[in-house]
Amino acid sequence: MALLGCGVVGSQVIRLMHEQAGDLAARIGAPLELAGVAVRRQGRKRDVDIAPELFTTDAEALVTRDDIDIVIEVIGGIEPARSLIVAALSGGKSVVTANKALLAEDGAALYEAARQGSGDLYFEASVAGAIPLLRPLRESLAGDHVKRVLGIVNGTTNYILDKMDTTGASFTDALEEAQTLGYAEADPTADVEGFDAAAKAAILAGLAYHSRVTAAEVHREGITEITATDVASAKDMGYVIKLLAICARSDDGRSFGVRVHPAMIPRSHPLAGVREAYNAVFVEAESAGQLMFYGKGAGGAPTASAVLGDLVAVARNRLAGTRGPDESTYADLAVHPMGETVTRCHVALDVADKPGVLARVAELFAKHDVSIQTVRQEGHGDDAQLVIVTHRATDAALSATMEGLRELDIVRAVASVMRVEGDD
Amino acid sequence: MALLGCGVVGSQVIRLMHEQAGDLAARIGAPLELAGVAVRRQGRKRDVDIAPELFTTDAEALVTRDDIDIVIEVIGGIEPARSLIVAALSGGKSVVTANKALLAEDGAALYEAARQGSGDLYFEASVAGAIPLLRPLRESLAGDHVKRVLGIVNGTTNYILDKMDTTGASFTDALEEAQTLGYAEADPTADVEGFDAAAKAAILAGLAYHSRVTAAEVHREGITEITATDVASAKDMGYVIKLLAICARSDDGRSFGVRVHPAMIPRSHPLAGVREAYNAVFVEAESAGQLMFYGKGAGGAPTASAVLGDLVAVARNRLAGTRGPDESTYADLAVHPMGETVTRCHVALDVADKPGVLARVAELFAKHDVSIQTVRQEGHGDDAQLVIVTHRATDAALSATMEGLRELDIVRAVASVMRVEGDD
Repeated sequence: MALLGCGVVGSQVIRLMHEQAGDLAARIGAPLELAGVAVRRQGRKRDVDIAPELFTTDAEALVTRDDIDIVIEVIGGIEPARSLIVAALSGGKSVVTANKALLAEDGAALYEAARQGSGDLYFEASVAGAIPLLRPLRESLAGDHVKRVLGIVNGTTNYILDKMDTTGASFTDALEEAQTLGYAEADPTADVEGFDAAAKAAILAGLAYHSRVTAAEVHREGITEITATDVASAKDMGYVIKLLAICARSDDGRSFGVRVHPAMIPRSHPLAGVREAYNAVFVEAESAGQLMFYGKGAGGAPTASAVLGDLVAVARNRLAGTRGPDESTYADLAVHPMGETVTRCHVALDVADKPGVLARVAELFAKHDVSIQTVRQEGHGDDAQLVIVTHRATDAALSATMEGLRELDIVRAVASVMRVEGDD
Repeated sequence: MALLGCGVVGSQVIRLMHEQAGDLAARIGAPLELAGVAVRRQGRKRDVDIAPELFTTDAEALVTRDDIDIVIEVIGGIEPARSLIVAALSGGKSVVTANKALLAEDGAALYEAARQGSGDLYFEASVAGAIPLLRPLRESLAGDHVKRVLGIVNGTTNYILDKMDTTGASFTDALEEAQTLGYAEADPTADVEGFDAAAKAAILAGLAYHSRVTAAEVHREGITEITATDVASAKDMGYVIKLLAICARSDDGRSFGVRVHPAMIPRSHPLAGVREAYNAVFVEAESAGQLMFYGKGAGGAPTASAVLGDLVAVARNRLAGTRGPDESTYADLAVHPMGETVTRCHVALDVADKPGVLARVAELFAKHDVSIQTVRQEGHGDDAQLVIVTHRATDAALSATMEGLRELDIVRAVASVMRVEGDD
C-alpha cells in the first residue's frame, strides 16, 4: 500500500501501522506493507520511523505502481488529490481517503473510477474524524429510513461557541483562544464560515437519502455574526447555540434539505452537552428512533484510527476478492431550496413601548402565515424588547417576516434572529 | 428467507419488509422474499399482513429448505434457537439473530457452523437494540485498540435507577412503575440481577478484545440491593448510580476484565445523562479516544431496524459471493478474575464519634494497600458517618478492606459500598 501525504494524519497512520503491525495482520489475514509515501518536499525532517527511500515526490508514479493495491490519501484539497485518487481507482486499486472537500465536490467521479477499476472507495475519516458514523449510516441503517440528521461536525466552531457559552466571551476573543490552543487555523474561514461543515453535511445527506449531493447544494451560514448577547439571551431561555449540519427529509419523503447554520437547541437535547472541540451526530430514523454518535472529530490519532479501520476493511475485501458497498443513489431525491425548509425562529426586536406595538407585530407574522408560539416583553419605555419564538414555518415565510419587521416603523431594530432546532 | 419467531420483533420485521420492499431491493440489488415464518402455535391471530400458508410450526424443516438462503432468528433463549441456527448455518445459509443469551453462552458453536457452511452470522440487534454498535466495534475500530467499554445496556434497570434518582423512589416502587409501563417483565430477574447485561458484556468484550468470552466469565451483581439512601447520597456527592457493563483491558494488555454491577459515575460523565430506558455505550480506544453510542436498546421497531440492517448486509454478501467478518479470537486474551480488576470504592460507615476512630479506619485501609482519596465526616455523636472514596486498587484489596471494616469494633455498620467509575 501507498500513503499520499505525511502530515498530522499521515504520520500517525505510519506510527500506528508500525505499532500495531501484528494486530493489523491478524485482523486482515495478511501483513500490510508500506511501499511508498508521497510528499511534497523530499528530505524534510519527519517524525516517522520509516526508510528514507520510501519517500517520493512523484505521487503520480506511486499511485500507478503495479505492486501497490491500496492507496491512502490524506493530502486534502481538490487537486492533486482528485487526479491521484481517480488514477489509483481506475487502475484497480482501493482507496481510503479522509478528503471531505473532494468527496463533497466530486464524489461521483471517484465512485465512477472505483466502479471502473472494481476497487473500494472508503472514507469514514472524512466526517466526524474518529466517530464511526458513515459505516453505521450506510450499513447498520440500511434497513431503515433516516428522517433527520442533526450534527455538530466542526470542532473549531463548537469550541468557540462553547467558550462563548461558558465564559461569556465575544466571538473574536473565543476565536483567538481557539487559535492559541491550536483548535483553529490562522485563517479560520473554512471553519467559522461553515464550509467544512457544509462538505460533511453533503456527504451525510448523500448517504442518508441514497442520493447525490454536493457541497454547492448545501445552504450555509457561519458563526461570525453571533454576539455574546445572542449567546446570553439563548442561555436565559434554556437554549444553547450550536453550529449544526442538518439533513432533513420533507414530510412527503420526496425531497430533503441540507443546511449548515447556527441554531438554538434546548439545553436538554443530547447535543447540547457536547463540549469543547468534540463532535456528535444525532440521527432520527423511522424504526431505530433517536441515535447519537459522539467522539473526537479531528486530530492526528483519532483520524488515523478511522483511516486504519477502513484500511483493514478494504484489505480484507481485496483478500476475499470482493468490494464493499458501492455508491447508493437509487432514491435520487431532490434537494429542496432553503426557502422550502421548515424550521422555527427566535427573534428579538427593539421596539417602542407603546400600545398597539404587539398587535402590529403579530399582524405582520399572521400576514406571512407564521404562527407565534411565545412572546415575551423585556424592559420598558425606550428599552423595550420583544422576544418571539415562532411555530414551524417555511424558511421563506420566516425570512419574509423578518424583512417585514425591519421595515416596520415601530421596530427600532431586529436585534437578533436565530433558528430553533431540536425541540419538536 | 425465513423468519423464526413472530413476536414483538418478528412482526415488526415483517411489517418493515413489506413497507420498505422497494428500498430494500434497491439497497440489496435484488428483492427479498419471505418464504416461511416458524411459530410455536399455528392459527393464532397475528398483527401481520402475510399469507397464512407461510406460517409453519415445523421450524426444523424450514431452516433446511433448499429454497431458503437467509434465516432470521428472533425466538430468543438457548433451545430450540441453538439447534435451529446451527442447522441453518451448517446447511450453508446465513443467519441474522438478536439472541444475546445464546451468543454469550455458545457463540463459538454458531461461528463454527457458519464457517462450515460458509455463510454469515450477524447479530447487531443482540446488544443495545437499534444502536449501531457491534459493526463499529468490529469494523470501524479494527485499526485501533479498545482500552475500555462502559455501557448502559439494559433499559429496564436504567429506567428503574433513573426513577430512583429523579423521584427518590425506592427500588421496589420504581420496579413496580417500570412493570406497569411495560419496561420491566412480570419476572424481572434477568434484568434486575444483571443476567441480560452480562450476556451483552460478554459479546462486547469478545469483539473488543478479539477473544472468546462467555456469560459465565462475567462478574455479575444486580441492582436489587440499592436503596433510596444510596441514590441520595450519590446525588449529594455529584454522582449518579447506573448499572454498567464494563470491559477493561489490564494495564499490561495481557488480560481483561468483564463485569456488570451498579456503579457511581460523575454527573458530568456523558453516560450520566442517559435517561429512562435509553442505552448508551462509552468506548475508550487508544487512538480514537472517547466515543459514545446512544439510542434505544429495545422495542420491536428499533430491534427490527438492526435486524434489517444485518439482513441487507448478509443478502448483499450472498449476491457478491462473499462473507462478512468472521469470528476474531486471534488475541486469545484471558479474562482475569474480579479480584484483579482495578477499581475504586465509595463506602459509608456508621461509626462512633470519638477520638481515634478515623485513625483506626485509615490504618485498616493502609494495611490492605488501599489509598484513600477523600474522607468526609457527617453528623456527630451516635449518628456520625464516615464517607470514604478510595483511589484505584484491586477489587480483592477493596473487598478485604470492606471485610475488615465490618469486623472493626468502632464501626457500627458498613452502610453502603459502591464502586466508582468514569472519573479517571
